[in-house]
Amino acid sequence: MVSLNDFGPEVRAEVKQVREVVASLHEQLIKWNLVVWTAGNVSQRLHFADLMVIKPSGLRYESLTPESMVVCDLNGELVDGQASPSSDTKSHAYIYRNMPDVYGVVHTHSTYATAWAATGQEIPCGLTMMGDEFGGSVPVGPFRLIGSEAIGEGVVDTLKKYPHSPAVLMQNHGPFAIGCDAEAAVKAAAMTEEVAHTMWAACQLGDIIPIAQDDIDKLNERYQNVYGQH
Amino acid sequence: MVSLNDFGPEVRAEVKQVREVVASLHEQLIKWNLVVWTAGNVSQRLHFADLMVIKPSGLRYESLTPESMVVCDLNGELVDGQASPSSDTKSHAYIYRNMPDVYGVVHTHSTYATAWAATGQEIPCGLTMMGDEFGGSVPVGPFRLIGSEAIGEGVVDTLKKYPHSPAVLMQNHGPFAIGCDAEAAVKAAAMTEEVAHTMWAACQLGDIIPIAQDDIDKLNERYQNVYGQH
Amino acid sequence: MVSLNDFGPEVRAEVKQVREVVASLHEQLIKWNLVVWTAGNVSQRLHFADLMVIKPSGLRYESLTPESMVVCDLNGELVDGQASPSSDTKSHAYIYRNMPDVYGVVHTHSTYATAWAATGQEIPCGLTMMGDEFGGSVPVGPFRLIGSEAIGEGVVDTLKKYPHSPAVLMQNHGPFAIGCDAEAAVKAAAMTEEVAHTMWAACQLGDIIPIAQDDIDKLNERYQNVYGQH
Amino acid sequence: MVSLNDFGPEVRAEVKQVREVVASLHEQLIKWNLVVWTAGNVSQRLHFADLMVIKPSGLRYESLTPESMVVCDLNGELVDGQASPSSDTKSHAYIYRNMPDVYGVVHTHSTYATAWAATGQEIPCGLTMMGDEFGGSVPVGPFRLIGSEAIGEGVVDTLKKYPHSPAVLMQNHGPFAIGCDAEAAVKAAAMTEEVAHTMWAACQLGDIIPIAQDDIDKLNERYQNVYGQH
Repeated sequence: MVSLNDFGPEVRAEVKQVREVVASLHEQLIKWNLVVWTAGNVSQRLHFADLMVIKPSGLRYESLTPESMVVCDLNGELVDGQASPSSDTKSHAYIYRNMPDVYGVVHTHSTYATAWAATGQEIPCGLTMMGDEFGGSVPVGPFRLIGSEAIGEGVVDTLKKYPHSPAVLMQNHGPFAIGCDAEAAVKAAAMTEEVAHTMWAACQLGDIIPIAQDDIDKLNERYQNVYGQH
Repeated sequence: MVSLNDFGPEVRAEVKQVREVVASLHEQLIKWNLVVWTAGNVSQRLHFADLMVIKPSGLRYESLTPESMVVCDLNGELVDGQASPSSDTKSHAYIYRNMPDVYGVVHTHSTYATAWAATGQEIPCGLTMMGDEFGGSVPVGPFRLIGSEAIGEGVVDTLKKYPHSPAVLMQNHGPFAIGCDAEAAVKAAAMTEEVAHTMWAACQLGDIIPIAQDDIDKLNERYQNVYGQH
Repeated sequence: MVSLNDFGPEVRAEVKQVREVVASLHEQLIKWNLVVWTAGNVSQRLHFADLMVIKPSGLRYESLTPESMVVCDLNGELVDGQASPSSDTKSHAYIYRNMPDVYGVVHTHSTYATAWAATGQEIPCGLTMMGDEFGGSVPVGPFRLIGSEAIGEGVVDTLKKYPHSPAVLMQNHGPFAIGCDAEAAVKAAAMTEEVAHTMWAACQLGDIIPIAQDDIDKLNERYQNVYGQH
Repeated sequence: MVSLNDFGPEVRAEVKQVREVVASLHEQLIKWNLVVWTAGNVSQRLHFADLMVIKPSGLRYESLTPESMVVCDLNGELVDGQASPSSDTKSHAYIYRNMPDVYGVVHTHSTYATAWAATGQEIPCGLTMMGDEFGGSVPVGPFRLIGSEAIGEGVVDTLKKYPHSPAVLMQNHGPFAIGCDAEAAVKAAAMTEEVAHTMWAACQLGDIIPIAQDDIDKLNERYQNVYGQH
């Protein structure tokens, strides 16, 4: 088995830093009400080696420290860590191998996003925030069993058809979100739940006013290129 | 009346440790929004004697300390403690006597689980998380009055028909959850509310896509045997 | 104007203690999500004089200290305090004058209780918790304007018809709750919101299974006489 | 470019104080669940110069300090600050230029207010709290793209038609709230979400009982002139 000692100091330093980032982002999942008990996981890919840092399987959030985070290669094999990696590790690995710009992946069972997923309906684009963040609807991916990389395949296949969306609702299961790092992916997961909740509530009131595709495109273009600190 | 002094030091040490565990798990009921004011209760059975530790009746959560937890025998009779035991003590005791693998019992009135219970409908299995945790639907138990062991009988009768489910929704009342210890039962109570909320929200959106029984079985088998740290 | 100096040391000591209790119970309104910004108010009647302690009007919860609590007589006239009393003071006073067993009153605009109030529908009794706490449905009181004792009259008239209920939903307005002290009234306000939320959610799922009146009576009898520490 | 050094010590002192107020009010947006991640923004106009203090664009709430708040003129041009101002700066500036009594503006995407906005329906007045705070319904403003002052125009045009309302729901987007300072605007934003949530829940239960216009006027008159500390 490969071990962290097979890598140079630059990689080991990045592992240390990414372990801190990934552990700390799990607190954000709790803060924004995206997970219950041990559900959900965050990973981040390294830049200096084909490795990723991911949550261990089935640990309560109170127990998650930087040291408890697990290092795996991009086939999902354990490289460093005291605990078994998340059940979704092979799917995170598949996403990194097949989407080279993605360096962060998050999976939750957040309540309203998962409710849409249980009905197999995508979340229609009725909010400027959806134009900004998703460039349209939030898509639904196929039903897949847990444990292999089958979920990762479903995520990649779906997101390739929705190139502006950083999230996909896996049918009967819950959202997967991606980003240029783990923080961006956690933000996408938080935004997915927020638009899922808002659009769910709107559907109970009556018909949603659709936003013209041309306006959605302008919102997305501005948000991706002008919003924030450049 | 039997007292703790009738037991050896090993039992008294276990009582001390379980009092800490049970008091601390009541904080988890608050953290996950499963209870209001004084509602809800957690118990854990001992391994070294036919005793259980349970919450006192009607105390606010701010007042719950390890010392205030009550020790009863498995007929629900008080063995040690300054306060009257929970109104549900005889039902917890019945469950322990009749389900020898169960060492933790939790009762809540968590909002969405109790909403399903008020309509007498089981929660249909539309989520992989339900396959994992419950092996199918979350069942409904009969209407029973509070104070005797009648609720415990209803819990046991129902769970014997749903051997993969760690929780039952008592009609017009609320969920009871079980586990190999009190922490596992609290987890089951938290998951019951989460799937109750998600499936409730999904039902407002339209038809749920059912999960094939074969897939539910595979999810449950993997989760019970592979998930977590082994 | 009467002042606190017109009363003896026993009364002044009770005022000091009740100011601490009432200030601290306002934190419970925040904790249980019963109020937003400055909405809501708690009062407690004294035992040693015909006085009550109540929240000042329009102050943010961060600013509420024991010293900022206002003392009024049972006509709602200011006796001691730096700030104007709550807009609902005359209604609290009316309740104390007309219900001599009541020593605590709480008013909130908690979300789901107020939603029921906006439709003028009482909350039907579909939960054992409602049998316990309310002895049946939670009743609706008449529409009344704010500022005079008209709301207090509506509360008293309604509760006299529902002698087991510690709360009434004032139409288009929100709940008023009563108790043997302010803590009991705050508990009743918290329970009102919880059963309002649960029964609201249940109504979205389908028909509620009614509980037989005989069973409701047994639940209420046991809860009022056996539950808790006696 | 104009800089803060072009202003006298009185203005610079007000800038320092308002930066503290505006930074601290962003914590209230989190406290009352009005925003997710980086969404939402608060500004306050100065009294001693035609300047305003506003949130920087796209920063997480954990990073918001008084020093990070940005100073702009009333055309939305940067006057002082290390970071780019909020995307909504030109709209805040437009509101201040066209509504001279307004010294605070808040924008959120709070869940239930935004759900109403997605359907283009105003929130009907079914609560005494709405009579108090809004003097009637909460109005809907037009669909507008983000980044220019077009949103500000829509806000002003709508509020001129609803002179008692301190908030408008911009269609498919979310609420804008105004006040005599930033704290009053944040209060209006919190109240907008609360009445949006309550009326949304009420609509799921059945028909809302309307409040007579005469009673709405009396509630609004009393609240604006008698409520609170005068």
